[in-house]
Amino acid sequence: MAIGIFDSGVGGLTVYQKIADHFPNLDIHYLGDTARVPYGSRSKETVINYSLQCAGFLIENFDIDTIVVACNTASSYAIDQIKEKYGVNVIGVVEPGAKLAIQTTSNNSIGVIGTRATVRSESYVTALKNIYNEITVEQVACPLFVPIVEEMLVDTDIAKQVVKHYIDGLSATGIDTLILGCTHYPLLKETISKSYPNLKIVDSSEAIIECINKLNIDTNQNGVREIYLTDESPAFETLKNVLAGGLTSKKAILSC
Amino acid sequence: MAIGIFDSGVGGLTVYQKIADHFPNLDIHYLGDTARVPYGSRSKETVINYSLQCAGFLIENFDIDTIVVACNTASSYAIDQIKEKYGVNVIGVVEPGAKLAIQTTSNNSIGVIGTRATVRSESYVTALKNIYNEITVEQVACPLFVPIVEEMLVDTDIAKQVVKHYIDGLSATGIDTLILGCTHYPLLKETISKSYPNLKIVDSSEAIIECINKLNIDTNQNGVREIYLTDESPAFETLKNVLAGGLTSKKAILSC
Repeated sequence: MAIGIFDSGVGGLTVYQKIADHFPNLDIHYLGDTARVPYGSRSKETVINYSLQCAGFLIENFDIDTIVVACNTASSYAIDQIKEKYGVNVIGVVEPGAKLAIQTTSNNSIGVIGTRATVRSESYVTALKNIYNEITVEQVACPLFVPIVEEMLVDTDIAKQVVKHYIDGLSATGIDTLILGCTHYPLLKETISKSYPNLKIVDSSEAIIECINKLNIDTNQNGVREIYLTDESPAFETLKNVLAGGLTSKKAILSC
Repeated sequence: MAIGIFDSGVGGLTVYQKIADHFPNLDIHYLGDTARVPYGSRSKETVINYSLQCAGFLIENFDIDTIVVACNTASSYAIDQIKEKYGVNVIGVVEPGAKLAIQTTSNNSIGVIGTRATVRSESYVTALKNIYNEITVEQVACPLFVPIVEEMLVDTDIAKQVVKHYIDGLSATGIDTLILGCTHYPLLKETISKSYPNLKIVDSSEAIIECINKLNIDTNQNGVREIYLTDESPAFETLKNVLAGGLTSKKAILSC
């Protein structure tokens, strides 16, 4: 049995890479719905519909028992629906990230950075408060981070200044833990931690490794790695150079 | 008779503002299809369909004889279809911008900057070559410019560095004229011209003023100004502060 990962686009490849590195023999099939990215501005109904189609593509084409939803919006809306329709294990990014952040914080004060859509949805705020209602959460939307990653500017002065622009104020609120609430952001983790060495940074994909371990699935397979995209993606062309492994992609056609 | 302007989002407000400033008594109704932005990644058929709906909303609700398509993608695909369906004057951004650039260049070497979708579509290259086949065109996609404008960072060091990042190479190719091929970019015009004082910068909205003048329509009306959006837009909330006039928006519901 293999793992299927899907995202609205290519940001979820950071999750793919973390899982691929950690389980070198696990068969992994990734689907990026690049034809319909971003999901953040779609209605809940549409996000559920798209998510079921993505999960369906992976489950119908490969021998999959676990779906990782590497997309914040889809993780907020569609986890239960995928479980119910396909009867597989489903792991999102929001809940594991929130849990790990609560375990990490010492002063119960957590920062969340993400896209405008993720911040507006308050999905991390809800998940954190569901675990511990007394937690303090501060959010900041960082719309420049995704293009900085996709333009391969992560190690530049531009990136350093943009990080400072967004996180100075957030850091000043007294948070001790910062959730990277967008799957692109782990590529900026080093830049952020260099500027804010006292912040504990939570990357949901680390929490996902823990979730996979707990499932006790057989991870000793053939190390098959496949990337499917629903449309050509210039962002993939740049990200595949940032991420290790010399990835190539195939065209996916989803059934509606 | 009034003018209707539409764009896939809020970038077209730079065109709106230029027209509003130039014709203070003209009645202007703007529609931003913020629920379905961006158009650049949609199929040609979908862009035509959406554009006809946008034009239809303006024409059916207001006494409009001229539609300005303040969106590069819609300008490339849907001008003829709007003319044919509604029998109104239709002015796009691509052709007037290309014409003005050809009039402006002294060395027949023109640069175009735009979103990834605009650059990939080659709409400006085609329009320029249609006017003068011997023209040399160099293109660069600048994915960071839109978020920089929408985050109100136009006058910062970040903006200066990002401008340098994208335009140094383009400038070095020997172009003497630069087309701002995205309706957000006029807000970066000053930052660009400060760094590249020898570049002649072409803003399509200036060419559009010329097109409106040529139509000989009655511009002496009541100066009605209305902004409609198909969905709430955080980008509008920031842009309305950058653009003069204390704009407010109303909700538009399009008929499909």
